[in-house]
Amino acid sequence: MRVNAHGLDIDAICRQARAAARAIEWLSSQQRRDVLYAMSEAINAQSSDILAANARDVTAGESTGLSPAMLDRLRLDDDRLHAMTAGVRAVADLPDPLHIDLNERIHANGMRIRRVAVPLGVIAMIYESRPNVTADAGSLCFKAGNAVILKGGSEALESNRAILQAMEQGGVSCGMPAHAMQLLDTRDRSVVHDLLQRYDTIDLVIPRGGEGLIRAVAGHATMPVLKHYKGICHVYVDVDADLEMALNIVENGKVQRPGVCNATETVLVHESIADAFLPRLARRLAGYGVELRGDARTCAVIPDAIAAHDDDWSAEYLDLILSIRVVSSADAAMDHIDHHGSRHSDVIVSENAATAQRFLRGVDSAAVYVNASSRFTDGAEFGLGAEIGISTDKVHARGPCGIESLTSYKYIIEGRGQIRP
Amino acid sequence: MRVNAHGLDIDAICRQARAAARAIEWLSSQQRRDVLYAMSEAINAQSSDILAANARDVTAGESTGLSPAMLDRLRLDDDRLHAMTAGVRAVADLPDPLHIDLNERIHANGMRIRRVAVPLGVIAMIYESRPNVTADAGSLCFKAGNAVILKGGSEALESNRAILQAMEQGGVSCGMPAHAMQLLDTRDRSVVHDLLQRYDTIDLVIPRGGEGLIRAVAGHATMPVLKHYKGICHVYVDVDADLEMALNIVENGKVQRPGVCNATETVLVHESIADAFLPRLARRLAGYGVELRGDARTCAVIPDAIAAHDDDWSAEYLDLILSIRVVSSADAAMDHIDHHGSRHSDVIVSENAATAQRFLRGVDSAAVYVNASSRFTDGAEFGLGAEIGISTDKVHARGPCGIESLTSYKYIIEGRGQIRP
Repeated sequence: MRVNAHGLDIDAICRQARAAARAIEWLSSQQRRDVLYAMSEAINAQSSDILAANARDVTAGESTGLSPAMLDRLRLDDDRLHAMTAGVRAVADLPDPLHIDLNERIHANGMRIRRVAVPLGVIAMIYESRPNVTADAGSLCFKAGNAVILKGGSEALESNRAILQAMEQGGVSCGMPAHAMQLLDTRDRSVVHDLLQRYDTIDLVIPRGGEGLIRAVAGHATMPVLKHYKGICHVYVDVDADLEMALNIVENGKVQRPGVCNATETVLVHESIADAFLPRLARRLAGYGVELRGDARTCAVIPDAIAAHDDDWSAEYLDLILSIRVVSSADAAMDHIDHHGSRHSDVIVSENAATAQRFLRGVDSAAVYVNASSRFTDGAEFGLGAEIGISTDKVHARGPCGIESLTSYKYIIEGRGQIRP
Repeated sequence: MRVNAHGLDIDAICRQARAAARAIEWLSSQQRRDVLYAMSEAINAQSSDILAANARDVTAGESTGLSPAMLDRLRLDDDRLHAMTAGVRAVADLPDPLHIDLNERIHANGMRIRRVAVPLGVIAMIYESRPNVTADAGSLCFKAGNAVILKGGSEALESNRAILQAMEQGGVSCGMPAHAMQLLDTRDRSVVHDLLQRYDTIDLVIPRGGEGLIRAVAGHATMPVLKHYKGICHVYVDVDADLEMALNIVENGKVQRPGVCNATETVLVHESIADAFLPRLARRLAGYGVELRGDARTCAVIPDAIAAHDDDWSAEYLDLILSIRVVSSADAAMDHIDHHGSRHSDVIVSENAATAQRFLRGVDSAAVYVNASSRFTDGAEFGLGAEIGISTDKVHARGPCGIESLTSYKYIIEGRGQIRP
């Protein structure tokens, strides 16, 4: 057995994951669904063990000085466990994404050539404090026929271990292959580096957490990564905007849930309506205590606004702060978004169909909106079911990633002895 | 201007490529087609310059001792130039992959959510001696709305420069944005390393060439890579095979064009038909001078076969050499393929539908065949039109990659003021 400082045998873990991935391939759609229901029941049955393990994590976190926000993400209770098991059952009930003919063609020589959806194979999930990711990600990967290797945050290790034990016990009792879900049971982060070398085994790695974690994973991974760094979402209020609608959309984007990646961070305002719009915007947001950081033109109209610095235009505040800039045209807004944006979600508010179409085509982001809030960028809202993550890359999957992004395809060619002339 | 040892300003090249990608977005489908036709005409018009440049490359290659095979790949003549321009026109005439609604959903709140095909953005191509890749890859990337940065082999630099000059001149005269196609005009390989750091600009890198080139690119790239390392394609001759059909399929896979990645390298033979099949196989291949490397059982039946070593099972010969192994079952064949294969193209020859279905499902390769030659794994044969490469990865695109693999999608959401409750 080859072990490293972290005490885990990555070779064995990878070998087991690959064998499990091959074994899952033989399960029927109904069997995969049944396994997930059994997991949900096992989490319920072992809820007191899971809550006890979680209490140990929380106590340790308090003593090591985790922030209140981190402790909140870490903490489980009956409601959160209930949501977790409901989530596993919801994944179980998703339409099966596998073994679907994506297209079919009959070759001139008579061969039938089909492109068929298949699992990706082995997926690695690397995440931070929230232990519900163990159940969410584990069940989504399994539903799509994949083996998964999970590495959660060290502060949540006892919780993750208890959740995984329940899921594995429930799953295996119902026909899940051994090692279909493996947890890297260590607090040593060096295990992540070793894992990221294994492009021979791992078909996709998905980091979930802060930008630092994601950059570290993307920087060291030798296999494809599904990721987004941050969401700097813009609302451009056009000269032809319905200003009341624009106020609603900015308010919703900024204050409905400021700490998430699809919250609005920057408002771009056409110069011809700046004098009319900006005072109303300031009044609308004042009640929420939103801090406004504006360019010179904005500050001239809104006396309470703070002068924005250059790095405000590239800041993901995740907080009740909004940057505001006055621009000369829709094209200038698009230039700003191209230069400062994060290719996540951007909005135009305009009643002018031609301007809206130009914005929709010209803005190179995962989700581009006309006359709606950036807060809708979400797997469930887009009809994808549960979401494994959001991608701001442009290959494989872009935007909110549902179960389809955990699949690949293969070509199946059926002939009667055809050879190539 | 920041320059390195290679004398090129990568910052400027990346900035120009990104600006060109944005500008291409505004061209209509007809404009992109017209640009490609203009490129084809310009290559024709400047054929004497291109052939003269190529002659200088060939002369230099002869004096530096390039192998005859390399020189053959490098050399252009009227026929090859004719094929090159016909290829550019064929790409021009492909169906436009852009601005197609891939799916559409109306949200309960009335928003229209569409997934729409868009260009990837900026693609980097890194390739070796064949100068026709400059025209093939350049035209495919442009047809799909992308800017492209090309780095060809140093031995083909004069040829590539002449081809690109013609394409650029023809294209720009017809409305192609400047810098939509850029050639890294240097023989210094360090430029590739610099380019591979630019994940901020380059959305996809495609290496084409030998395994060494591809491993070097994949090892250093900070952006997604579309690639395959090699093709170790298997034919499994089942106990229920039509042996005459199996002979035809193995013969075609091995000898029709042995130097390509979809040629057959290994034959796995069910033990119950080994005595009947192997002597016939040896006779069939003898006329082509195919060297046979077998396991002990094969060598017992075919006296002329050489004993295979362990590394024969993982060898991509690209030559008139075939490895042969006798296996106890279809599952044993699948285990062999899982252990030694390259996830490229694998074949079962069997009249037993259940065995064939088991093989099709259990073999984790880009293309899995029943009763047809592995030589069909090709973009044109699969109906994809021209091929930019073959992928043995499982994300984004798998198997032969046509123009669709050079696109991404974005979500376009059209509302009337919807906000998230």
